[in-house]
Amino acid sequence: METIKLKNSNRKPTEISEIFVQSIKQATEKKSGLLALHEPVFLGNEKKYLNECIESSFVSSAGPFTDKFEKDLIKLLGVKYAVAMSSGTAALHIALLSVGVKPNDEVLTTPLTFVATSNAIRYVNAYPLFIDVEMETFGIDPNRLANFLKKQTISRNGELFNRVTNRRISCILPTHVFGIPCKIQEIVKIAKTYNLKVVEDASEALMSRVNEISAGGFGDVGVLSFNGNKIITTGGGGALITNSKVLAKKAKHLSTTAKLAHPWDFIHDEVGYNYRMPNINAALGAAQLEMAKTILIKKKNLFEKYKETFRNIKFGRLMLPPSNMEWNYWLFCFQLSNENKQYRDNILDYSNINNVMARPIWELMTNLKAFEVFDVENIPNAKLLRETIISIPSGANFK
Amino acid sequence: METIKLKNSNRKPTEISEIFVQSIKQATEKKSGLLALHEPVFLGNEKKYLNECIESSFVSSAGPFTDKFEKDLIKLLGVKYAVAMSSGTAALHIALLSVGVKPNDEVLTTPLTFVATSNAIRYVNAYPLFIDVEMETFGIDPNRLANFLKKQTISRNGELFNRVTNRRISCILPTHVFGIPCKIQEIVKIAKTYNLKVVEDASEALMSRVNEISAGGFGDVGVLSFNGNKIITTGGGGALITNSKVLAKKAKHLSTTAKLAHPWDFIHDEVGYNYRMPNINAALGAAQLEMAKTILIKKKNLFEKYKETFRNIKFGRLMLPPSNMEWNYWLFCFQLSNENKQYRDNILDYSNINNVMARPIWELMTNLKAFEVFDVENIPNAKLLRETIISIPSGANFK
Repeated sequence: METIKLKNSNRKPTEISEIFVQSIKQATEKKSGLLALHEPVFLGNEKKYLNECIESSFVSSAGPFTDKFEKDLIKLLGVKYAVAMSSGTAALHIALLSVGVKPNDEVLTTPLTFVATSNAIRYVNAYPLFIDVEMETFGIDPNRLANFLKKQTISRNGELFNRVTNRRISCILPTHVFGIPCKIQEIVKIAKTYNLKVVEDASEALMSRVNEISAGGFGDVGVLSFNGNKIITTGGGGALITNSKVLAKKAKHLSTTAKLAHPWDFIHDEVGYNYRMPNINAALGAAQLEMAKTILIKKKNLFEKYKETFRNIKFGRLMLPPSNMEWNYWLFCFQLSNENKQYRDNILDYSNINNVMARPIWELMTNLKAFEVFDVENIPNAKLLRETIISIPSGANFK
Repeated sequence: METIKLKNSNRKPTEISEIFVQSIKQATEKKSGLLALHEPVFLGNEKKYLNECIESSFVSSAGPFTDKFEKDLIKLLGVKYAVAMSSGTAALHIALLSVGVKPNDEVLTTPLTFVATSNAIRYVNAYPLFIDVEMETFGIDPNRLANFLKKQTISRNGELFNRVTNRRISCILPTHVFGIPCKIQEIVKIAKTYNLKVVEDASEALMSRVNEISAGGFGDVGVLSFNGNKIITTGGGGALITNSKVLAKKAKHLSTTAKLAHPWDFIHDEVGYNYRMPNINAALGAAQLEMAKTILIKKKNLFEKYKETFRNIKFGRLMLPPSNMEWNYWLFCFQLSNENKQYRDNILDYSNINNVMARPIWELMTNLKAFEVFDVENIPNAKLLRETIISIPSGANFK
């Protein structure tokens, strides 16, 4: 790999791309086959627990593994309550309903996230209001957030309103991008000042921590995902976590068709959802949770190898997490230098053609048809990250 | 069981309840333990396919079992397309969106159904408009439907409007209650006359047929459920079935976050949903589908036993399906005679205390808080069924 020690500024896109691909192959020690961005690893009781589901005939909702999964999650994260659901998206939806976001409200959120975050805001007929991110964590910039609230909002009868749209603003929904905790403590502090709820999108941030508090544990509620690409998987799944008994109860009620407890009757007291995690998915999740710390160590080891193989590259740099937090190493990314960002698509094309899954950061929410009509703040940082970031294979499946 | 040969009119509720419970225990040949309304039975490749998921690491979305499950479902039902989703509720939601139900539309539906049917209408911000059922199939009465459309609607520019509310009416959403096909052919005919779409809620009606066409195959789209209480289960799950390529494509797009195909980028062209069935749930479903016909035979056998044990009961009768269709024997029910309907709650209490799961038919949608505000037709038949029907253990798990 001596080529990567050369200066890259005069290189052609194909040469840069080849260096990029070789650096990844060297770190993962996988020379053939597809290098996926993520691939689940099953190291423990997965088969055993699934077989137990079949033996017991408990595969659907309300099974013993759903209880176990929730209890183990609570213990691992140090939060008081967890409600397991069928996806992270479902958990985001229920989270917004639980904290009381109403139709026509506005929710302050990030333009740099997976589409589920903004979709969930539309599910409750509210509108996303996008605040730019900062470059250290890729999360909502607390300074810009505070600035927006100071300049463009007014308080009436204890509720906050957007001066321009005249809509109520009820909630802040930040995302911990790639598992890196955003500046959540500052965001929560600002939320308290303005009497706003915080739904913390920790879909990618299972086991990331700040000051020994788990991501998802700072807001009124937090949301996790257990999709196949996450630290641990339940096939499809998610969870809402919270320290509030009232919100946990509300979330469980809404995610189980809002059915009232009764020995035999079917009474539902509001529009509810069929979002509870089936026992069979929780069985997989319970086995996965037992190995979560091992999985994290494997991911950390891969990241250390990337540090080495990307060390001398000049056309960009491997992004390092801020030092004042614990990262879960969910997704590693490489940032192109400004003079090389023009080659982003070449690198992405070349990598994917050569069996290396590489991805840009998500298209900005403000550029998607579903959200482009909504009020957009000036978002230079999000735009720069969209142009320069490339995610690379980050699984625990490599050596 | 000679007691059940006596006249029951002078009997006390406890005596009636005891006869009821004993008739169920005799038919199921289960003398102890809980007699569930349904319990999944695993007779085939369930463990094998689940273990294959773990071996291959395909557990999440877009796996080979999801494809297999859809293909096998298509073959079994004789429809052209199937899109597997995370629940029947999810499939109802996507069904309504796919056929073009818009916010503030009205959807003609039944007051006698599981709450998901009406909830899904509210998810798309439309309103349910309840039409009474008929007593033979418990489904929407085509005569009342035609009568309502004739009297209370007006056509403008090819669209139908409710004269009273002035809202557009875009769709009919009938349910095949307990798996018994409603008068779907008449309903579809009426829908065509008025240019309305039909979403067929066949959640409970997998493998029920009319004139050799599967329930769910008559409407523009049909919806199935594979919850733990259904004929076959995927843990939690559902599917949308259709003969329309356009609607199948739309449904798949909407249920996979409306993401556009691209080698590496994340572009979503509308608000979408995270509703696709994970591979692990489809693995269970694929094994279950292989045994579906065997399961049906077991259920039919139990029903024949109930016919025998309930034969001489005078305080009501076992409901028999109409002769001009094929029933899937999903849920059996007993109808109390009018003079004994006062004892419904006694029988339900007594049965459930004595480990026999018995259930009334659902609380009418018109009596639930979420829907009581909406325009309600006169619904005497639905009311009578709510007062007189008791569902009884119907699983394939009994001898």
